[in-house]
Amino acid sequence: MPRPDPAEVFELTEDGQVPSPTSQQTHFASRYVDGSTIDWLREDAAERERTHVQRSQHGVRGLLLPWFDAAQMWLVVILTGFGIGLTGGWLDVLVKWLGDLREGRCSYGFFYNQVSCCNDVNSGEVCTEWMTWSEFLGVRVVFAQSLLHSLVYVLLAVAFAGSAAVLVKSYAPYAFHTGIPEIKAILGGYVLTSFLTPWTLVIKALGLALAVASGLSLGKEGPLVHVSCCMAYFLSRFFKQFRNSEAQQRKLLAAAAAAGVSVAFGSPLGGVLFGLEELDTFANESEVMWRGFVASAVAAVSLQWVNPFGTSKLVLFQVTSVSDTWRAFELIPWLTLSVIGGVLGSVLIKLNVEVALYRRNGVLNDWPILEVVGVSAITAAISYLTIIRVQASELVANLFQECDPTKIDYHGLCNPTAMWENVFLLILTAVIKVLLTAWTFGMMIPAGIFLPTIAIGACLGRAVGLLTQGLQRAYPTAWIFLSCPPDPSVRCVSPGFYAVIGASAMLGGVTRMTISLVVILFELTGALSHVLPIMISVMISKWVGDAIGKDGGIYAVWIAMRGYPWLPPIDFHDKGETGAQLMRPVERLVVIEDERETVADLAGMLNDHDFHGFPVVHRQEFLGFITRDKLKLVITPLLVEDTTSGRPRRCVFSQRNPPNVEEVDLSGLLEEAVLHLRQEVPKELVVSMFQKLNLRQIIFTTGGKLTGMVTKSDVVALLTCNFPHSKALPSGPRRSWT
Amino acid sequence: MPRPDPAEVFELTEDGQVPSPTSQQTHFASRYVDGSTIDWLREDAAERERTHVQRSQHGVRGLLLPWFDAAQMWLVVILTGFGIGLTGGWLDVLVKWLGDLREGRCSYGFFYNQVSCCNDVNSGEVCTEWMTWSEFLGVRVVFAQSLLHSLVYVLLAVAFAGSAAVLVKSYAPYAFHTGIPEIKAILGGYVLTSFLTPWTLVIKALGLALAVASGLSLGKEGPLVHVSCCMAYFLSRFFKQFRNSEAQQRKLLAAAAAAGVSVAFGSPLGGVLFGLEELDTFANESEVMWRGFVASAVAAVSLQWVNPFGTSKLVLFQVTSVSDTWRAFELIPWLTLSVIGGVLGSVLIKLNVEVALYRRNGVLNDWPILEVVGVSAITAAISYLTIIRVQASELVANLFQECDPTKIDYHGLCNPTAMWENVFLLILTAVIKVLLTAWTFGMMIPAGIFLPTIAIGACLGRAVGLLTQGLQRAYPTAWIFLSCPPDPSVRCVSPGFYAVIGASAMLGGVTRMTISLVVILFELTGALSHVLPIMISVMISKWVGDAIGKDGGIYAVWIAMRGYPWLPPIDFHDKGETGAQLMRPVERLVVIEDERETVADLAGMLNDHDFHGFPVVHRQEFLGFITRDKLKLVITPLLVEDTTSGRPRRCVFSQRNPPNVEEVDLSGLLEEAVLHLRQEVPKELVVSMFQKLNLRQIIFTTGGKLTGMVTKSDVVALLTCNFPHSKALPSGPRRSWT
Repeated sequence: MPRPDPAEVFELTEDGQVPSPTSQQTHFASRYVDGSTIDWLREDAAERERTHVQRSQHGVRGLLLPWFDAAQMWLVVILTGFGIGLTGGWLDVLVKWLGDLREGRCSYGFFYNQVSCCNDVNSGEVCTEWMTWSEFLGVRVVFAQSLLHSLVYVLLAVAFAGSAAVLVKSYAPYAFHTGIPEIKAILGGYVLTSFLTPWTLVIKALGLALAVASGLSLGKEGPLVHVSCCMAYFLSRFFKQFRNSEAQQRKLLAAAAAAGVSVAFGSPLGGVLFGLEELDTFANESEVMWRGFVASAVAAVSLQWVNPFGTSKLVLFQVTSVSDTWRAFELIPWLTLSVIGGVLGSVLIKLNVEVALYRRNGVLNDWPILEVVGVSAITAAISYLTIIRVQASELVANLFQECDPTKIDYHGLCNPTAMWENVFLLILTAVIKVLLTAWTFGMMIPAGIFLPTIAIGACLGRAVGLLTQGLQRAYPTAWIFLSCPPDPSVRCVSPGFYAVIGASAMLGGVTRMTISLVVILFELTGALSHVLPIMISVMISKWVGDAIGKDGGIYAVWIAMRGYPWLPPIDFHDKGETGAQLMRPVERLVVIEDERETVADLAGMLNDHDFHGFPVVHRQEFLGFITRDKLKLVITPLLVEDTTSGRPRRCVFSQRNPPNVEEVDLSGLLEEAVLHLRQEVPKELVVSMFQKLNLRQIIFTTGGKLTGMVTKSDVVALLTCNFPHSKALPSGPRRSWT
Repeated sequence: MPRPDPAEVFELTEDGQVPSPTSQQTHFASRYVDGSTIDWLREDAAERERTHVQRSQHGVRGLLLPWFDAAQMWLVVILTGFGIGLTGGWLDVLVKWLGDLREGRCSYGFFYNQVSCCNDVNSGEVCTEWMTWSEFLGVRVVFAQSLLHSLVYVLLAVAFAGSAAVLVKSYAPYAFHTGIPEIKAILGGYVLTSFLTPWTLVIKALGLALAVASGLSLGKEGPLVHVSCCMAYFLSRFFKQFRNSEAQQRKLLAAAAAAGVSVAFGSPLGGVLFGLEELDTFANESEVMWRGFVASAVAAVSLQWVNPFGTSKLVLFQVTSVSDTWRAFELIPWLTLSVIGGVLGSVLIKLNVEVALYRRNGVLNDWPILEVVGVSAITAAISYLTIIRVQASELVANLFQECDPTKIDYHGLCNPTAMWENVFLLILTAVIKVLLTAWTFGMMIPAGIFLPTIAIGACLGRAVGLLTQGLQRAYPTAWIFLSCPPDPSVRCVSPGFYAVIGASAMLGGVTRMTISLVVILFELTGALSHVLPIMISVMISKWVGDAIGKDGGIYAVWIAMRGYPWLPPIDFHDKGETGAQLMRPVERLVVIEDERETVADLAGMLNDHDFHGFPVVHRQEFLGFITRDKLKLVITPLLVEDTTSGRPRRCVFSQRNPPNVEEVDLSGLLEEAVLHLRQEVPKELVVSMFQKLNLRQIIFTTGGKLTGMVTKSDVVALLTCNFPHSKALPSGPRRSWT
């Protein structure tokens, strides 16, 4: 084994905090570099030690310190909730203004959007204060007017999208995309601090507003969750307890993510359930769920306080169904929609993967901004000609609306004579949206997948609803429609609610979420009486989606493509294999031998291998596990002593005999919490232990002898081996995270 | 060690299925007796083996068998959902009829309730078909009329409650109480099959209808969950996969419990979340959550199909708030209500515990039916004189209702001049209800705690709402009420919604649930726009409740009193202790020594100790763990051979050398999945492993040598040591469940 240069090892040391090697109680502050994975057991141990030290303080200090700790934590949770509520509200205002700017401007003030510009106008009158660009510039010729309008519409779209892309590319590359795959990985223990910097926060929020206003086929939901996490991370940096503990930080981030969803959908319960189901974080810690609950509630209250839509309601897409009941025959179109949603969701995922691979491997890889500009120009041009000209959220709101003779008929959807035209238009819009979304999701801009998915589903659902309604009106006396009220003036089929079903089916197919989706959808629409059909459609579309593509949804696909070390929460079933087949056998492990290795040997070992830690054995007998960081911290000063004295010492890890002068006792460095198992244990159980206990490694012993080891990376590789494009889009700092 | 009589050991053997001792692949069907705890790891292993055997079948069989398995499972889930939906619906109809019978009868048919009797009468007319008892019997004197009415009212109440108690006592003692503590214990692994028999199902359902109709202070929610579980258990008995696997059965029961809640509250989402939060079952198995989701949906659809209330709505207590918005100043009365709810919830729990202890230790223990009769007479007498004369569910619905001049004014609550009288009456009712509920919950009848708690909270909430409304009407120009609309004819404060807040606060205080409570409440009331105040009140009342009584809610208290081996899902924090302090050290363990014990020795050991299993060591070195049942199965025939041949053989558990004729190799019996840890591992981590992995024991080794063992019972004892009345009400078969 080559002797390393001591100076080289010194360079590796962090912050010079060198504890006494035999002190078992020393607090090892955890410092991980980007790309590594945290060790939950070790983090918990450090946290335990910290609180124990606090509580054992004498007098008032011992009482107040834990209280301060809790106060700090709640402060960060509440501030994050408040902050993301405000941010969400103001982003909405900004997007509205930018979007309206593409159509015209307010005559008496540039910074008014259309609604606030026309605020003083009574409902009967026409608003003359808001001027289209041709009115403002005094263009009178009709042809020139259309040309000007379309030109401004497209040019501003390109300008918005382009500047968002420039911002992202230049200042915060991690601000692109939705962010949810990264958050899932981070909450699972992956370290990626550059994903959570204040710069990312600012760029993602600003870029998101620009991207949404540009009319690209994207939503703000995922990015808002990212922004919320950045906010919590930023605030947590002010407090030592979070700076020093990655685990504590992650518990905060989980609450922040819930708050983000709460703001994105105006759905406080949905936020908590999203954290529970999709982020899989609250599963075993009621305390963490509790924080998510509070953060969600605070965020929703703040959003309601900002009141961006002037309605002081949280329900974004209120469904106004006249009939509260639904009929059994409607299950047929709804089931059809659910199956379509499941199939189309899988298709969208597959298309998106193909586009992502093509982008990475083709010419586009070098021209990300140009790609954004091009796609936004195409999107704007298509949108200008069809009903997706309005912003997607408006489109969805209109599609969810029932036809009411006393209200405005959006897009002519309520014209009963134009049914076939409407159906054709809606299906065309859905197809275009699928293509645009598959391309847009993954470009160099902040982009969420929820809203476009809802829009696609709503278009399809409305189309099916119109067809059903037409059929019922054409044959009102057919036996299948006998449950409808006999009076033809009473509506029997509500196409607006079909749009909701379509949206839930499509979301089920794309995200493969279940309960949180149902809750989000009925908090979004307020359609409480229709929660059963929503549940059923989400169920069916998830089933269909899972049957077609065994990918686990769009987020799982992106996590696999980016190669993050994330354990999918799937139920793994082995075919009778045991841990022996999964483990790396002892012959292929780098182990430390008790009473054999000198200090310099260990320093060399640390230099040669970048494993997270090493098993320690005495002859073949397993003594314990030692992590790289702890070892490095202790070895470095010892090496200096050894090189100075010229007498190499051997390292002992078991206190069999009192150590003599030629030995140095490192037994205090062994990890307290290491799991051993017999190698006959079923593979399935090993996987489920990694999933449930957030482990980094499991040691296998037989009669006390080390036989092998399984690390988290082995398990991740096992669980993602079905997906063909694993690690196709690696990014960021690479490091072995064994 | 005394040699046992072989015949005696033989007697212990179950069903004579004696596998070959060395076969590692033999399927050990799990047969547990009541009072024991199942071994999840072992159950999982058996299930794994079963599916593996199925899949490895050749040809079509190998494809069809797993499919049949899944089909059976879904069949049971769907049938259970359907069954409990129907049962819930018909119970409602039965209760309505029995309840109406206490007031009078239908002139043209005994089996019509008041509503269906008057169905043909137009809304303007008076219904003459429904006759009070005095009308029916032709009593004309006013005094005699009142006497007759009150007498029939009380006597029928006593008759209903008494017959429910007789049914429970004679046929199904486990049908008493709510059943939720038992279900929590069973889902955690406790075995209590007598709790799930068809008899219990029938008696609980019938007794529940009688108990509710008698007007006692109890609800149907918990018992419906119990009925649903009985139903699933009954159905599962028809399929071998569930008969043979306690673990599979429990996954079904979890889904059934969700369906039960779904029917009880008309809240399909609430059911799923109840399973998630309170039963803590779905935490790590998305598949189980999925089943709960389906069962809930099916149950709710079936209930809607039966349509017991003739409204074809699931929302039971529709809140009809005119104003969708709420004002900041309302937070003050709401916070007050939340604190009151938290305090009163803890008081109710404490009272209930005191009553339960008094009942068990006093004279009442021998006269359960008399107790029920007495309490029901008192309850009926009090109810007849106050507003709780109507059934509790009606009372709650009326309290949640806003005042509307066009509708009937229930109980005179909307009379603005009688504010103080109303407030006094409501508070009095709440106090009476608290006392009656504390006594009733635990008597020898089926009884749920949800509805009475909601009623108490609604009374208090309505009282606070009336006070706030009075204050606002008295001082409409005070600065605090400036956010109210200036027009005094527009309502600003909605006392009906205050009742909802009161109910959620009270529920939070009594059950200490969070998210599932919020979802249930807003599925119950449809008050989607007010989900934030509900969230906040649940949060605060839980905080207050937890701060006052560290008991974890009424269900945890009853589990502790009954002494069920259930691990509370609390975050346990140690004070620096390690596993060494928690474990039973090796000197106090009964261990099997390799190559030492003869077959007869082991048989004697099995006879002397009723531990669940024994560690096996070779000298001090730990070899593995062997369960009592497996060992017994193998030892019995060996012992017969030995006594026949007259040559005692020694048992070897490690395959160091090929076994000779004087030895018998039992190494195949060692459990595959046994966790070892070092004893330096923090106590906290040991506890959390038991909680997360559903373990029965953890072995501690140092350098391969056995140092100790911790069992589930040790951990339960550790976690419930704060509660003073643990095991105060033991019941059913007792057995060591180490």
